[in-house]
Parts: sequence; C-alpha cells; structure tokens
Amino acid sequence: MPTKTPHSLSVATGPIPGSRRIYAECPARGFRVPFREILLHPSANEPNLAVYDASGPYTDADATIDITAGLARPRDAWVRARGDVEAYDGRAVKPEDNGHVPADKLVAPFPLRHRPLRAKSGAVTQMAYARAGIVTAEMEYVALRENGLRERMREILRDGEDFGAAIPDVVTPEFVRDEVARGRAVIPANINHGELEPMAIGRNFLVKINANIGNSAVTSSVADEVDKMVWAIRWGADTVMDLSTGRNIHNIRDWIVRNSPVPIGTVPIYQALEKVGGIAEDLTWEVFRDTLIEQAEQGVDYFTIHAGVRLPHVPLTANRVTGIVSRGGSIMAKWCLAHHRESFLYERFAEICEIMRAYDVTFSLGDGLRPGSIADANDAAQFAELETLGELAQIAWQHDCQVIIEGPGHVPMHKIKANMDKQLATCGEAPFYTLGPLTTDIAPGYDHITSAIGAAMIGWFGTAMLCYVTPKEHLGLPNRDDVKTGVITYKIAAHAADLAKGHPLARAWDDALSRARFEFRWQDQFSLALDPDTAMAFHDETLPKEAHKLAHFCSMCGPKFCSMKISHEIRDTARQAEAQAEAEQGMEDMAERFRAGGGQIYRDATAAE
Amino acid sequence: MPTKTPHSLSVATGPIPGSRRIYAECPARGFRVPFREILLHPSANEPNLAVYDASGPYTDADATIDITAGLARPRDAWVRARGDVEAYDGRAVKPEDNGHVPADKLVAPFPLRHRPLRAKSGAVTQMAYARAGIVTAEMEYVALRENGLRERMREILRDGEDFGAAIPDVVTPEFVRDEVARGRAVIPANINHGELEPMAIGRNFLVKINANIGNSAVTSSVADEVDKMVWAIRWGADTVMDLSTGRNIHNIRDWIVRNSPVPIGTVPIYQALEKVGGIAEDLTWEVFRDTLIEQAEQGVDYFTIHAGVRLPHVPLTANRVTGIVSRGGSIMAKWCLAHHRESFLYERFAEICEIMRAYDVTFSLGDGLRPGSIADANDAAQFAELETLGELAQIAWQHDCQVIIEGPGHVPMHKIKANMDKQLATCGEAPFYTLGPLTTDIAPGYDHITSAIGAAMIGWFGTAMLCYVTPKEHLGLPNRDDVKTGVITYKIAAHAADLAKGHPLARAWDDALSRARFEFRWQDQFSLALDPDTAMAFHDETLPKEAHKLAHFCSMCGPKFCSMKISHEIRDTARQAEAQAEAEQGMEDMAERFRAGGGQIYRDATAAE
Repeated sequence: MPTKTPHSLSVATGPIPGSRRIYAECPARGFRVPFREILLHPSANEPNLAVYDASGPYTDADATIDITAGLARPRDAWVRARGDVEAYDGRAVKPEDNGHVPADKLVAPFPLRHRPLRAKSGAVTQMAYARAGIVTAEMEYVALRENGLRERMREILRDGEDFGAAIPDVVTPEFVRDEVARGRAVIPANINHGELEPMAIGRNFLVKINANIGNSAVTSSVADEVDKMVWAIRWGADTVMDLSTGRNIHNIRDWIVRNSPVPIGTVPIYQALEKVGGIAEDLTWEVFRDTLIEQAEQGVDYFTIHAGVRLPHVPLTANRVTGIVSRGGSIMAKWCLAHHRESFLYERFAEICEIMRAYDVTFSLGDGLRPGSIADANDAAQFAELETLGELAQIAWQHDCQVIIEGPGHVPMHKIKANMDKQLATCGEAPFYTLGPLTTDIAPGYDHITSAIGAAMIGWFGTAMLCYVTPKEHLGLPNRDDVKTGVITYKIAAHAADLAKGHPLARAWDDALSRARFEFRWQDQFSLALDPDTAMAFHDETLPKEAHKLAHFCSMCGPKFCSMKISHEIRDTARQAEAQAEAEQGMEDMAERFRAGGGQIYRDATAAE
Repeated sequence: MPTKTPHSLSVATGPIPGSRRIYAECPARGFRVPFREILLHPSANEPNLAVYDASGPYTDADATIDITAGLARPRDAWVRARGDVEAYDGRAVKPEDNGHVPADKLVAPFPLRHRPLRAKSGAVTQMAYARAGIVTAEMEYVALRENGLRERMREILRDGEDFGAAIPDVVTPEFVRDEVARGRAVIPANINHGELEPMAIGRNFLVKINANIGNSAVTSSVADEVDKMVWAIRWGADTVMDLSTGRNIHNIRDWIVRNSPVPIGTVPIYQALEKVGGIAEDLTWEVFRDTLIEQAEQGVDYFTIHAGVRLPHVPLTANRVTGIVSRGGSIMAKWCLAHHRESFLYERFAEICEIMRAYDVTFSLGDGLRPGSIADANDAAQFAELETLGELAQIAWQHDCQVIIEGPGHVPMHKIKANMDKQLATCGEAPFYTLGPLTTDIAPGYDHITSAIGAAMIGWFGTAMLCYVTPKEHLGLPNRDDVKTGVITYKIAAHAADLAKGHPLARAWDDALSRARFEFRWQDQFSLALDPDTAMAFHDETLPKEAHKLAHFCSMCGPKFCSMKISHEIRDTARQAEAQAEAEQGMEDMAERFRAGGGQIYRDATAAE
C-alpha cells in the first residue's frame, strides 16, 4: 500500500550558539540530567552559567539524531523495574484513527512499534508512589533538574514576593515526592513515554511553558510538526501540546511522541470528533474512551479533558460577547445542548480516572468556558466551571491521578490576581496552567505580547505553567518563526515570574548578563541571551565587524555617549580618589600615633572652622 | 556654500487602512480636534469607533504634505493672541550647533525660519495660566481630545482599579485646567511650536507613550529621522524625543520640529557635550544655558534635565552591577567628580526655570541614576535621586514651570509598585514618565517585550507616559521596523493600563474588536487592530483568498473546530429552546387561568413524582 513517507524529516540540531549540553550524573540510579552550560570568556572571571535545558539530545553535539528511529528510551527500564506494569498487544490502529485518509495520503506509520505497557492493576502514577512514600527515579531526576547545579553559582539571591508559595532553598528528592503527594506538583510521565526526560509542573518549581503545535484540516504535514516540536523545545518549551485536528492524527502523533524528550499533551476530544465525522452530537462515551486508550498506549503524557463544561453552565455563556472560545468546550456544550443531558465527561469522570491511572496520564482539566474577550473575563460561566474543576480534582486525587487545572484566556490586568486566588482556593493547590492571559483584545498580530504581560503576572502570582501564545493567535496557524517567537516571549514571562517570586536560580542569569554588558563582553552578552542568534544579528546590523565585538560601545549611543564607558571612568576616578583618601588616612594614622605618643604638631582643622 | 540637501524626504502618508481622520469642531475657538474613525461594516450594526489620534495631518487623506514647508502653524495665533509674548531675532546659529560639521556634510537648514517668541516677562506656561484660572485654547483642545467623542459610544464601562487616581467620567476644560494647576498633568507646548496639536500627560488622562528617535555619531541621516518621527506618530507615539548625538544636531532638529504635530523632547546636555568636543569635564553652565535657549527658540516642548544627579549621590553607584546607565547621568556624574563639586544643573536650577518659563518648555526631570539591571533596581542611588527630583519639582512649580519626572529602567515585577508609590509620595503627584521598566535582563533582542510587561504594570499603577523600548535596545540604533514594533508594543502596554484603570474610553475598543471576532467580520477585525497591516498579512499567509475574509473560520482551527462557529450554533439552539420554553409557558399560563377559574383538569405532576 503506497503511503506518504515523511520525507525531508530534518530538524534543528547542534548546540545553541555559545552553549553546550552538559549532564549531572546520578550514579545511584544510573542516569544523567541535562543542563545547558553557557560558556563565558575567561575575562569574565566567573564560572560558566548552567541553566535548565528542555531541548533534549538535539542540542548535544555528541548525539546522533535519527527521526525515523526515535530517541533512546532509558526511562522504559525504570518503569519496568517497578514491577507493576505489563506489556500487551494494545489496540489495533483503525482507519478512523487517521481520519479515514485515502491510502495515497496516509502518513507512513512510525517505523518502530513498542508494545504498550499498562498497570497490572490500580494506579502506576507518580502520585500513587509519592503517597506510598516511594521516591521514584523520575522524582530524583526532577530534583536534580530543578536544583540547577546551584552549587556552582556565585551566590544565591532570594529577593522576591512569592504570595505564599513554598519554594525551598534546595530541592531534594523528598521535597519533590512531597509536592507530588500533596497534588501541588505533577510529573507528567506516561509509562509508555520511555523517551521522556522527566520534569515537574508546580508552583514551587521553576515556572514552565508549553508550546502548541499541530496540523489543522487546512494546513501542515508531519515533517512540519516534528520540526516544530524540536524547534519549540530548542528554544525552551517545557512541554508540547499536539493540537492536530486534521487527518493522519494518529500517525503524526506517533512520530512526535517517539521523538520527544518533553511531555506531550493532547486534547483527545479533537480526535474523537474526527472519528464521528465532525458531528459533535454524534460523540459517544465509547468513542471517547477508545480514543483515550489509543493515545495512552502511544505515550501521551497529559490529556486536556473538558469535564467541567456541565449542562447547567452552558446558559451562563448566552450573553457573552464571545460565547465559548475553547474548541473542546464548545464541542461539549453543543453535545450537552443537543442531547439536553449532562456531559458524559462529567458523568464518566471516575471511569476516565481508571484509564488515566493505568498509564499515568496526567489530567489537564480544561477550561472550556474560559473568557475569549476582556468583556467576558471572570464571569459566572468561567467561575462556575472553575468550581467544578476543583471538585473533579478531588475525585482524580482519590484515584491517585495527577492533575493540573487550565485557566484563561483574556483577562484585564486588574482581574488577573482574582483568577489565581480563586484557583488556589477552589482547586486544592493543584498546579494552574494558563493561556496567557491576554490583557487586551485590540492587538491581533501581537498577541504574544498582549498575553506575555498577563502571563508574567499570573506566573508571579503562582501559576505553574504558561501556555504560549504566538503572533498568529486569532489569525492563523503558527509557522516555525511564530513558534520561536512564542517560546522566547514565554521564556521571558516565566523568567520574569521566577525573578519576582524570588526563585533561587533566577537572579544569577540576569546578573551574569548584566555584568557582561557592563564589561563590554559582547560575545558573552549574546551567549547569555535567551536568543543568541537574534541578539548578535541585531548588534551586527549596524556594527558588523569582528572588532566591534571588542568595542567599548555600541551603535545606539556611539563611543562618546556610552554611559557604561563613562561609568568605568567614574569608577576609576572614584578609585583614585579612594586611594588618595587612603594615603591621606595613612598620614592621619601616623599623625594619630604621633599625637598618642604625646607630640602635638597639627592643629585640629575642624575645630578651627 | 554647498550643503547636504535632505534628498528623498518621503514620509508615510494616507490613512491607516480601514480608518479615516475626522475632526471634532470647536467653533468658539475656531479649531478642530482630530480623531481616527475606524470604519465598520454595516452588518456590525454599531457606530464606527473613534479613537485618539496622534498621527497628525499625515493620515488625513485631504492633507497636502510638504516636508520642506513644514506643517501649518495654527497654534501660533493662539499664543500671540494672549498678548504676553514678543518676537525677537533670536540666537544666531553657530558652527558648534551642528558639531562643526564640514560644509560638504552640513545638512541644509530648514528652508523657513520663524522669528522666535519669548515671554515679555515672567511665565507664559500652561501652569501659570491654569493657576490664574485661565482656560487656554490648549486646555480646551486637550479636553475635547481626551473626551474622545464618548457621546458616540454604545456604552461607557468603568470597571477597573485605579489605585487612587481621579479619572473623571467626562473631561471638561475646567478639569484640564485644574489638573495642570495642581501639577498633576502637563501640556508640553513650547510657544515656538506652532505646529503642535496639544496633548496632556497626566495620571487622570489616557496613558501616553513616547518614541525615541535620533541619529548617533555612528549612523543615520536627516531623511531617516524625519521619516522615523512621522512613522512613530503614525502608529501612535504621543510624543517623540530626538536623542541625536552626532553632527548636524541643530539642523536635523529644526526639520523634525517644523514637521511634528506632537511634542518634541530633547536632552540638551547631549548637544552641549558635542559643543565642548565630547569632554564632560569641559561642560560649563554658559554652554548649557546657551543650548537651552537655542533649543527653546526652535520650539522643543520638553527638556530632560538631569539635575538630580548630585555629587553626594555618585558614590552610591560605586558597587552597582551596571553603574550609571543614563547617558546624561553619567556625563553629569563625571563632571561632578572631575571638578569635585556640586552639579551646575542643580545649583543653577532656578536660573534654568527662568528660561523654561519664558518659552513654556516642560521639565522632564531625568533619572540619571536609574537602574540599568535587575540587580540595581530600587537601590539607594536611585531613590536618593528621586527624592532630589521631588525637591526640584517644588522649585519648578514655584516658577510656574510644568514638570514630569522620569523613572526606571530595569525593575523586577515585585519592585515596580514601590517605584510608583514612592514617586507619588515624593514628587507631589507630578506625572511619572518611565522607560519600561524591563522586568528581566536576559532577553536582548526582545526588550520591547521584557519592558512592555513592566510598562503595562506601572502604567496601571499610575505612570502617565511610557517611554518605548525597541527590539534593538542594548544592541544598536532602531531602524524603521524597530520603531513601529516599539510603538505598537507600547500602545498595547498603555491600553492594557487604561483598561485596568477603568478609563471610560478603554473598553469600547476591546469590545468592538471582540464583537467583530465573534461575528466573523474579518475586515473589521483588521481595521480595529492596532496594526491592521500585520493582522491582515498574518491572516492571509494561510488563507489569502478574498472569500476567506467572509469565512466563518480561520486556518488555526479550520471550519469543523471553530469554537466561535459552534458557539453560534449553541446560541441558536439555546434560542430555540427558549422559544419552546416560552411556548410551554404560554400553555401553562392558560392552564393557570383555567385553574384560577375553578376548573381542575390537570393533576399536579410534581406531586405525583
């Protein structure tokens, strides 16, 4: 059968300019945890800076990357070693899984198929282990990762306002276990995602960001999507959601998961809808359940499930300016209205939990009624759903399932904190995961910026993960450049939040860059930038010569007006003055000794004035 | 003498796509106040939206633009009509004014020279009139402008948190007068800037933004700078600062002021330094004073004066990570140290006030010691200077001079509000004018975004004007694209601040755009966007056909998954259900009447259950 081979499967590899991928070894467990080491010039007279690195082996100069083979699966052994899972044949792929795509348009299946694992019985979730007092390999990995080689840092500065978070000075495996046990953090880690480099999402860890990719019925191919995934994590995406809605959904997802070192999230209702020909009313529990198992077997780490869109909530949206803007939310609302009955996601929630805990798929409880405009922010529909999400989190926790809670959306600045406070109060401190929020509706084309403002603020207030927004939001599907812009913008928001919270790792990066700036170490400035390529290109636009990278000025002010240069002169002048004062003090000291010895040569100058 | 003629003096003209420039007439005064009317499709079933417009005649389809003639000068008559000014010959242009540029490199002087005006005696400032109870034409103009044709709006929504601001429901000329008299607002309006469309900067008005332009010793020409000025105001810059530091400073400034409908600000110490060959120590009061008069005669509306950099403050910067990052601040600090004496700007401040009030040049008291890194935020040097600026504001007000106060800089989110609170407490509510602040140092190339986060927040807290930051900040001189990106980014920050403050004009714009979005009026969405060109280009990247502008979906989700489309179906379903319920209620009502009449046919169904 002729299938469409994913040709030109090239992705960006090699280190970020000025950095290299390094590892912290964990000999006891036999694994190593990656970091990005930013290389500084010897004149910096300070150690290289190690920063969190979500980019996977793709930025390791020594790694061999073969997209058709997928990444290595070291975690598979950790999972099996726990002895509580079994391999089984798994569900056979059905034509509807790929949207009944004609044979000549079918994306080739991923070349390898791993027999799926599932729990022999009960829960194989990180939460179940955590509650049983077990520190898993994943928790130890996360502890090392979040600890960020802080022993190498010049100093730890913890100036900040954390609004009641409990960020520790040092992250221990036991701390990670405790956070997961309480439900205050999750480690999205499907037992079938052996390629995963485990990470945590929680208010007391570094703020994380998610990048959305995925084809739509209108555009994109598998090569584009794998490339976008690798490109997104290269620049710092901590998780990636595959929001594909077109054909070939199953096969594209397989290519993505098998090549992803970060947790992959999906919205299973999208694929379920495709399976019933796009007719929301035709959705059934059976189709949805089958889709959950299909994706759980593939290794998807978290599912957005819009179980909070209840029938009685739907009328609350009737007078909104923008109605329901969540795709999943609108699908479920339509189903509820068409059948005039309660959502099957809500009614079957305990059954969903049974599936989630058998694979350790984390719940991302979807905010199907999030506001899609400033006018609709913090309204009755949004908050009614949030309360339902709080109830559902409790049920999930009863099943030892991991949970994060999704949040808005479009919210003006003065209503952002109320969102965080209500989420904390309502959802038992389950990690909050927000889209932006956008702080105004008037700038389509720049919604990465309208939303970065809200994202930075809500991250500061306690949101654990920020879902990026690209410049194409509301206008079209993001391309590669948009993905990068979205990721860098959200790394800014997340880091600004970490700084304001007083996270122990945050300030070191800012200070290292500022020292480089003050000392005219241009190359170090570029290397320390979130996006070294762009920083260097902008500099070189006006001063392209190699010699200018050693210059004690830039084109912004030119040499005469460079305040930094003048500052150095001021410092030199001050040092000379100090030296002179010391010399004078030396004289004074001698005189003092002379006086103490009984002599009296100098008159007391101050007394004379 | 051959001079360098500003060839290719072309600027962007014509309306913003989807808008037209309209005017509100003030028959009593004989002037008209501009607005941008955003044209909506008839199907919108709502009036066109009028928004604040700083772009000048350049966006008026009926205007004839001739850069070599400059703009019309209607305000000149208002100034003369007050009878308190005199025309005089003015200072002759000296070779050092243009940096002793060789004749073949001299930019041609602006073709027209207007004899400068100055006060016959005392103060001719808006503050002096305001305190005397006089409502000037400028104040009436501002009142109409700030009122924003709100009588045309669908509704006025004032949901917000303003932190103690006093934003009125309706802006009257008397309110403007009172704000100016109190020093809570300024109308930067040099009597020699007849081309000006007056505007106000104050916490109780719309938040304003400033764009910096200017050549440096390294790059740029007069054509570029005039073009950048027009380009900056086209996209919404409310004032423009000319920060030129190279040669031809005097002549370039003349070209800019004569063609600018917005207030022009400068930093006179830059030109003064050029006049003494770039040697800070060689600066004198006489050179500086001469420069103030030179620029005041040209019509510059506000001067940044770093009189708060006092000798005793300089040592406070010694242990900073980035020292002094303000150019003006570093120049003055160097002067103070070299001479080991108090700054002549501080010592001569009363004399400076005498000049400012003779032309109504507004003080922008410079924050020469602002932090240039997260590490240095809110430190002793910064706050010592801020207290000095508060003292100086009182002295300026004693001279009836208008004053705004400049602020930082680089500040992490948790330290931003302290800046605003301290400024309000220290500076008698004089308008605050901040650069960003940048909320992290780690993203050179994206500092428009790192700073938009801080700018939106501090604007919300009460800052009256936000100085833009472009993507080139710290790396090079902004080009035309950077100027636009900076302006749009700061319009976002300013509008997000207005929204959060509950400004009566803010919500209407968001709601109009969101309604257009929900109703799939694509063309209206583009027209209502801050940047219609980019919004449309992004949409058309994936769906270029004209027919797609009528489509009830975009490429992001495709037709089947469009939540907005589904929302409309939900609304229809809900309406049908409502109609059915009403019909049922009608039956019930009939039954009620029947029962009330004594009949008894129906059993009570609820009682039976």
